Amino acid sequence: MKPRIAVDMDEVIADVMPKFIDLYEKEFGKRLSKEDYWGKKVYQIEGAQKIRKYLFDKGFFRDLPVIEHSQEVLKELQAHYDIYITTAAMEFRTSFEDKYDWLADHFPFIHWKNIIFCGDKSVFNTDYMIDDHPFNLQTFKGKGLLFTASHNINETAYTRVNNWLEIRAFLAEERAKRK
Amino acid sequence: MKPRIAVDMDEVIADVMPKFIDLYEKEFGKRLSKEDYWGKKVYQIEGAQKIRKYLFDKGFFRDLPVIEHSQEVLKELQAHYDIYITTAAMEFRTSFEDKYDWLADHFPFIHWKNIIFCGDKSVFNTDYMIDDHPFNLQTFKGKGLLFTASHNINETAYTRVNNWLEIRAFLAEERAKRK
Repeated sequence: MKPRIAVDMDEVIADVMPKFIDLYEKEFGKRLSKEDYWGKKVYQIEGAQKIRKYLFDKGFFRDLPVIEHSQEVLKELQAHYDIYITTAAMEFRTSFEDKYDWLADHFPFIHWKNIIFCGDKSVFNTDYMIDDHPFNLQTFKGKGLLFTASHNINETAYTRVNNWLEIRAFLAEERAKRK
Repeated sequence: MKPRIAVDMDEVIADVMPKFIDLYEKEFGKRLSKEDYWGKKVYQIEGAQKIRKYLFDKGFFRDLPVIEHSQEVLKELQAHYDIYITTAAMEFRTSFEDKYDWLADHFPFIHWKNIIFCGDKSVFNTDYMIDDHPFNLQTFKGKGLLFTASHNINETAYTRVNNWLEIRAFLAEERAKRK
């Protein structure tokens, strides 16, 4: 059996930031710069809580840009690992079909058997988990990789990966160690 | 931390049989008796393969009857266990909202964090799994309980439970042993 990797969607393979920045501008008439949302989510900026409600809109998750290099690297990694897409979709009833269709469009090489819509991720026993949320890595028994996102930038407790090329390199080293 | 149970939906808490029997009658003009589908699924009856396509219809999973005693027993078990509903919904894009709404109607005490739409269930590390499919129990590392369904009646490799009162009794014994 190949080692298994649980890969998160939002802010790991799907980029929600451009949409949040546009929505903030639409609501508040100001284009955010990195300093404005560094260390937090856009809807954690003071006064911007109402931005979060857009996550519940049909279509929100349907047209997100793909995070750079995630497609090519995941496709490559399938030679060595069983890849599972694990996303906390369950909070957003409206996101199910959007997320499913988005994956079919951009990651057609991921079989439906390997897609998981969930909430709490503590029930997964994969070997690796790639996620932008420290709380998901905290309960994880395998090797967790924290994917850099604006909101987790001050977190120091986990192995950090800044992009998919770093993930490719990290896992290549892991495989080399096992030989 | 409480021990955790992964509970399947179809043929464990949601009864698909009445609908399949009605659909068979509609298609073939014959009311099935138990002997006709014993040891298999309705759509595995010779010539009835096309019945399976109904699983892809919007609404199929929305109005299924609740399996007897599953509500009261699951509610009770929450005092002792973390309950996760784990259903292989991912094959049926059309089922997501139906299954979510059905759970909200009939199992409102199950938090969204504890609902999982998946495919392959081998990635779960719960302590127990209650499922009608031997292939899900086969890869499971915890204690698997095979919930009796027409299609699994000849399976002998797993601890069998015939209804939710037997599950309640089985788990009460398990807890007594741990004391």
